Amino acid sequence: MTSLFTAPDGGRTPDPGLAHRRADATVTLRGPDGAPLADRDVVVRQTRHEFLFGCIGFDLVDLANGASQDPEYDGRLAAAWFDVFNQTTLPFYWGTFEPERGAPQTERLLRAARWFGERGTVVKGHPLVWHTVQPGWLLGLPDAEVERLQRERIRRDVAAFRGVIDTWDAINEVVIMPVFTAEENAITPLARRKGRVETIRMAFEEARAENPGATLLLNDFDMSTAYECLIEAVLEAGIPIDRLGLQSHMHQGYWGEEKTLAILDRFSRYNIPIHFTETTLMSGDVMPQHVVDLNDWQVESWPSTPEGEERQADEVERHYRTLLSHPSVEAMTYWGLSDRGMWLGAPGGLLRADGSPKPAFTRLRELVKGEWWLPPTPLRTDAEGRVRFSGFLGDYRIEPADGGGAAEVTLADPGATARNASLSPR
Amino acid sequence: MTSLFTAPDGGRTPDPGLAHRRADATVTLRGPDGAPLADRDVVVRQTRHEFLFGCIGFDLVDLANGASQDPEYDGRLAAAWFDVFNQTTLPFYWGTFEPERGAPQTERLLRAARWFGERGTVVKGHPLVWHTVQPGWLLGLPDAEVERLQRERIRRDVAAFRGVIDTWDAINEVVIMPVFTAEENAITPLARRKGRVETIRMAFEEARAENPGATLLLNDFDMSTAYECLIEAVLEAGIPIDRLGLQSHMHQGYWGEEKTLAILDRFSRYNIPIHFTETTLMSGDVMPQHVVDLNDWQVESWPSTPEGEERQADEVERHYRTLLSHPSVEAMTYWGLSDRGMWLGAPGGLLRADGSPKPAFTRLRELVKGEWWLPPTPLRTDAEGRVRFSGFLGDYRIEPADGGGAAEVTLADPGATARNASLSPR
Repeated sequence: MTSLFTAPDGGRTPDPGLAHRRADATVTLRGPDGAPLADRDVVVRQTRHEFLFGCIGFDLVDLANGASQDPEYDGRLAAAWFDVFNQTTLPFYWGTFEPERGAPQTERLLRAARWFGERGTVVKGHPLVWHTVQPGWLLGLPDAEVERLQRERIRRDVAAFRGVIDTWDAINEVVIMPVFTAEENAITPLARRKGRVETIRMAFEEARAENPGATLLLNDFDMSTAYECLIEAVLEAGIPIDRLGLQSHMHQGYWGEEKTLAILDRFSRYNIPIHFTETTLMSGDVMPQHVVDLNDWQVESWPSTPEGEERQADEVERHYRTLLSHPSVEAMTYWGLSDRGMWLGAPGGLLRADGSPKPAFTRLRELVKGEWWLPPTPLRTDAEGRVRFSGFLGDYRIEPADGGGAAEVTLADPGATARNASLSPR
Repeated sequence: MTSLFTAPDGGRTPDPGLAHRRADATVTLRGPDGAPLADRDVVVRQTRHEFLFGCIGFDLVDLANGASQDPEYDGRLAAAWFDVFNQTTLPFYWGTFEPERGAPQTERLLRAARWFGERGTVVKGHPLVWHTVQPGWLLGLPDAEVERLQRERIRRDVAAFRGVIDTWDAINEVVIMPVFTAEENAITPLARRKGRVETIRMAFEEARAENPGATLLLNDFDMSTAYECLIEAVLEAGIPIDRLGLQSHMHQGYWGEEKTLAILDRFSRYNIPIHFTETTLMSGDVMPQHVVDLNDWQVESWPSTPEGEERQADEVERHYRTLLSHPSVEAMTYWGLSDRGMWLGAPGGLLRADGSPKPAFTRLRELVKGEWWLPPTPLRTDAEGRVRFSGFLGDYRIEPADGGGAAEVTLADPGATARNASLSPR
């Protein structure tokens, strides 16, 4: 029997210059009649990043549903959110999504997902299978019934959201799943009985069945060799993983470039694009190293501090620069925009609890919409209707300064590229 | 695609009473003519344990080769060795087995293996593939050449020792193999390129090709979820693992029953018999917890102490009792009989450096040849020629008190069993 697993020959090398994220475009601009627009003043502006700058959207679900308890605050949150991010993660924890059996919050999440989608955001559902945040009504049912319900749940939700949510964390934290003891749940015994790989297969095959074109992730916080072994197991089992999800909750302190790059080096060798799915960096004290399960750290107050905010801004910048430097990374999701409602009460937001921006928010925006973004740029086409510009991979709009419509062009491949673009009336 | 991995429904429950290791035998004894030997005085004695009480035999290779530097000491070592153990592990580290390319120490190890075998010992070779103790001449060769040489090495040695060594640690410490950085070697890059599972497949398929009936182990020190994930990967890949090897070097302190049973619980659920392959318990100070790679702990002197020896005796007894209590465990190998030449200079032997027995040796012998052993026991056959006795699984010899030969019987299954045995002239 031959293996289904093919390891890469080399591995991918990080480039802090980010050449793999930029294109040098020569765009020939034509009018609606097909003739090149020679010697014309135009404005080129970037409209979308190909890189997925993500943030959870949990806190905006109420606003999207017209049910905000604090519309002024949520409005400011939303403005900040869409100023920086282009991918969101929405909560599909079974226990909160369907606390009462048979009454899932489908409509509420559909409205939220559409609201994000209409604003140019890629929406991901998180997660379809996990052993935590389980519905109470699942406990005590026989394994076979739990499996049947779990499979039905995946199919139902993936089908209901198809076309609105086409990216899913298919399954979460499988390394620990069958040996998890912190709270009783119905999924751990199932995973223990089926084995990790078959539990993963269940998640992927049910999701794929309802949405063959979906982008499905395997997601974990365990950056040890255990996750490597699990990935190799899944590849051996012939289960296609579309994207590899790596969490990076750094409540216990910033990893630093060396650790981050070592992790990227190890996990990029499976030739599966990597999503950093859950990142948190503290703007206050960090959690002591001796804590193993982050959930065990319960404090009355965990304030954001001025020194912490400066450190966080540096660390956010360093972490984003490191991740973007690695060609395998195509997404990075920050785990919570504001300190209000943060997991564990941690000062991990990019905004303070009052909604004001911490330095980290400003710093991140300066990267995403500054250093890595092409602002509206006046150029002049040459005699053949060509303009040349360099920019990050993504979408661009070219508009003649004197009006007459706009042309859209997508730069998807790094390096020199020649493209055609035709004006359409606006 | 369906999985090749079938997890057990239940799992196996430990029994401190060891009922799963004992048989209640009713043996009908017959003469050479086939007639029952009625109303005869006989002596029943155990001659072999089915459970494999192992110890490394590294220190006896010279003696077995008639090349001992200290025959008096080695003679005492050998006497103690055979007094307790019935399985040995012999060293096949590539770097010491074939330090000069093309000149393997085949004859020397063959003599040692035969010497042990003639004394009723099961012999295991350790290991066929590992990233440590590599021959220097392998470094710098291209991966493909390393793989070819590694495959040849496996075939050559498994073939040369077939019938003498039929148990092999096919591959050692794969969890860490592709990410091992402590010393440069040729196997880590190979494992990194091939992936862990394919490296394991290489070891198993080459060994199996030369000795289809061999007992092949996957062996690791990593008791974390990583090893579980690796095992699941190997099972998914359809590689038959005959036995699961778990190391338990306890230089940093005895695990205790709770941890040991938790590990047994986790690793027994793959329905593969378990060998505890490498156990060490200290009779002196234990190594500090902060040491990650045991090899990093270098001390000038690490003495055995009276208090340490008492503690070690208790821990040895507790560890053996715990392992035997679990039905999945069929072997347990202690990693070095005497403190002389112990790995890391640790006081982990059961004998002191001068060859005198520590309390742990005496305690272990009292279990293996005392509590768990049927001493010569006088019985009388009934009118149908039957004797009844209870004992640990293994081999028994029954001899009429007035001579006339001996009958051999093997008790292989626990519980009540009826067997026939015929006298053969001695």
